[in-house]
Amino acid sequence: MSNNKKLVESITSRDVDFSQWYTDLCLKAELMDYSEAKGFIIYRPLGYAIWENIQSYLDKKFKQTGHQNVYMPMLIPESLFKIEKEHVEGFAPEVAMVTTTGVEDLAERLLVRPTSEVLFGTHYAKIVRSHRDLPKKYNQWCSVVRWEKTTRPFLRGKEFLWQEGHTVHATAEEAKEETLRMLDIYEKLGRELLAIPFVTGRKTEKEKFAGALETYSIEALMHDGQALQSGTSHYFGQEFAKAFGIKFTNNNNELEYAYQTSWGVSTRLIGAVIMVHGDDEGLVLPPYLAPTQVVIIPIAANDQVTETANKLKEELESQGIRVMLDDSKKSPGWKFAEYEMKGVPFRIEVGPRDLEHGNVQVVFRHTREKALLAVEDVKDFIQPAMKKMHEDMYQNALNHVQTHTNVAKTYDEFKQHLKNGGYIKMSVSGQDAEIQIKAETGATARVSVDEPLVTEICPVTGKPATMTILFARAY
Amino acid sequence: MSNNKKLVESITSRDVDFSQWYTDLCLKAELMDYSEAKGFIIYRPLGYAIWENIQSYLDKKFKQTGHQNVYMPMLIPESLFKIEKEHVEGFAPEVAMVTTTGVEDLAERLLVRPTSEVLFGTHYAKIVRSHRDLPKKYNQWCSVVRWEKTTRPFLRGKEFLWQEGHTVHATAEEAKEETLRMLDIYEKLGRELLAIPFVTGRKTEKEKFAGALETYSIEALMHDGQALQSGTSHYFGQEFAKAFGIKFTNNNNELEYAYQTSWGVSTRLIGAVIMVHGDDEGLVLPPYLAPTQVVIIPIAANDQVTETANKLKEELESQGIRVMLDDSKKSPGWKFAEYEMKGVPFRIEVGPRDLEHGNVQVVFRHTREKALLAVEDVKDFIQPAMKKMHEDMYQNALNHVQTHTNVAKTYDEFKQHLKNGGYIKMSVSGQDAEIQIKAETGATARVSVDEPLVTEICPVTGKPATMTILFARAY
Repeated sequence: MSNNKKLVESITSRDVDFSQWYTDLCLKAELMDYSEAKGFIIYRPLGYAIWENIQSYLDKKFKQTGHQNVYMPMLIPESLFKIEKEHVEGFAPEVAMVTTTGVEDLAERLLVRPTSEVLFGTHYAKIVRSHRDLPKKYNQWCSVVRWEKTTRPFLRGKEFLWQEGHTVHATAEEAKEETLRMLDIYEKLGRELLAIPFVTGRKTEKEKFAGALETYSIEALMHDGQALQSGTSHYFGQEFAKAFGIKFTNNNNELEYAYQTSWGVSTRLIGAVIMVHGDDEGLVLPPYLAPTQVVIIPIAANDQVTETANKLKEELESQGIRVMLDDSKKSPGWKFAEYEMKGVPFRIEVGPRDLEHGNVQVVFRHTREKALLAVEDVKDFIQPAMKKMHEDMYQNALNHVQTHTNVAKTYDEFKQHLKNGGYIKMSVSGQDAEIQIKAETGATARVSVDEPLVTEICPVTGKPATMTILFARAY
Repeated sequence: MSNNKKLVESITSRDVDFSQWYTDLCLKAELMDYSEAKGFIIYRPLGYAIWENIQSYLDKKFKQTGHQNVYMPMLIPESLFKIEKEHVEGFAPEVAMVTTTGVEDLAERLLVRPTSEVLFGTHYAKIVRSHRDLPKKYNQWCSVVRWEKTTRPFLRGKEFLWQEGHTVHATAEEAKEETLRMLDIYEKLGRELLAIPFVTGRKTEKEKFAGALETYSIEALMHDGQALQSGTSHYFGQEFAKAFGIKFTNNNNELEYAYQTSWGVSTRLIGAVIMVHGDDEGLVLPPYLAPTQVVIIPIAANDQVTETANKLKEELESQGIRVMLDDSKKSPGWKFAEYEMKGVPFRIEVGPRDLEHGNVQVVFRHTREKALLAVEDVKDFIQPAMKKMHEDMYQNALNHVQTHTNVAKTYDEFKQHLKNGGYIKMSVSGQDAEIQIKAETGATARVSVDEPLVTEICPVTGKPATMTILFARAY
């Protein structure tokens, strides 16, 4: 099948050049395209549909846990942004500013939101008066702009799509509980939809969000052994409330500052899915995430082929399975390669030869294995096969994490493990060690782990170890 | 009920000052709030949830008719925007421009999208090669920024939420068909969800979209007799395709420019719903649009009251009805006023006195009528009552349109009718008449109607009449 071959050859092999493989895949699978504004991408139908499925999963979970969606302005007056000091220092170098309408310069510069803490803070200060107004649990789906110098599709761009939850509570306990509840929902998103086993944990002081007291994150391990921070959940304590004046009368009729959280995931998750599951043939989508779950391809179509293809489509769709029938004039080989590139979990080939014996071929994207099935068995086959495919993909990704997690008792061991990629657990003295490790090896603290110390002494600084950290090189 | 009274008094009467009534309602019903950036609003949970229901209705219809969602960058290089001349002239005075990151000025100014024709045009030019690639039917949900001088919640703001569909076709016929198909979907949105009878028709040359060959719109008539353009669908012909180089090889293997459409509705529709259905007690939401369809309010709660309230909630929710049970400590009177203000279609009052006889009160928001119902009858009552409420609200709005549509054979008649508001049908010579009418009366051509001429001579210019137009004052 020369067409097939030609298309496949056009993406770099994953093990030859992972970075080039990733970019090739993003373009060839038609997930995205570059735009005329440098650093900004176009989310093409497949890329956007994956995001819609993530949205749909999360939005339901957010609403089930009492959150409401709102929409805040895209532009933030510069003076407002400067109110919370740590926050502005964290974001100042990477904001885009509206200064003019082309006809008239603005009296005050407006920032295109890099995140919306200050807008939610100002609004909450206005609408929260009493403990009876609390909690307020808002979320917003939007895009944000950060002026990144180097960009990569989905992983780092000047604009990305995300959700940002911002909540305000009457007690620290309740806010902390919320912070962990949302982290838990993100972890479940990985387990139930993305087939990605996220490692969750707390960020170190050095790596936490600008202005937060505590930052938790979900970390995913890519096929190349680098980690990807895939979502964060922050506990703000009363810091923003003090900066923005969010006060309420508590149960004892005293005026008190409120407690806040924020949490978010973005289209970066699409990058995670690509780099965890993808292979040399292209994208491999976990079945519950896939916009198209089954593609039916008629081969050398005659009446019986067409009829069977349509019947299968109908039977599967009636079960809520997302099916596409491609009866276009392109060659079967071209179609096979096309839908493998786009990561469609199941391909059903309906051809006259197999039909003579009442059979069709079902091909699994994740293993590329084939199964010959009687036509009448297909309708009961796909649902359980999807479940198994999802579990297999999750398990494979988990195996990858487990075989790429090592413990280092010395700095040499650390450097040795780092060559093979993955996570390295090491106990260190603190920020001084983190800074030295980053400078010398490029690895950063992903999360701290709540486990006994590996060594009493930090192998890097020689000082007493205070915490155990999961290090990795990261995107 | 003094609490009730107090809350109601706080919104201006609709017939005393329609404009103030509108603003009061937007704020008091907690649909929106003003933000720190002048002219930008915050979409609060109720306002945003209404938008989500509109999105959900339309998104399904878009997908059923073969459209795919994408996402284009928020920022557009100035040079790109200037490619289509008419288009840039239409939008140039009202764009916000990013010129700096605060640290570094940009080499080229970037426009915050006021609409995305040029981005879709550029992308289509890149991905369309052959008639086999056509049609491409993309839509995007996003926000756009237009630097309006005077703003009003939902009706006109510096930023609004919308969807913009952009399609490209191999023939003019197909593109025209698409233009009308989407207009039809918008009309159905009014009929099936918003309970608004839209008048649909073609815009005059003067009023059409910058760069379009034909613009169609849906127009709604507000309670005060002013019209509101509520959505548009444009046929571009090959104009943008020529500007952006969207060419394809047709069936005869000749290179040809493609044919395009675009179409959109925005959060302005929320304004339409408010001004068509609202009353002195606040918002009145058509039942299929309402985020909460039934609110259950326990009165002087005892065990039986609580049990009944919970049972009713469960029974109605199991039918997919969106129910809220408010058992907070606020007074019943306060709650009645609150949910009337927020436009909840049905209120069920569960109190010990009625329960003694096995009854509850059901109150209809649109008429404020009450019905005493046996508890066991409620579950079968709400669905048909919703259907009837929707039909009544649609019919009331239609009656308003019909009693406020007049025909003018003379300019004096026109001016006389205009005093009472509503649409006035008149046959005019052309743009010269439109300009004069607007200058002298403030009325504009809403749509042209495909009907025999009312008069042979234009009553305004004295020249031969060429078309019949529906005029109105408009928002």
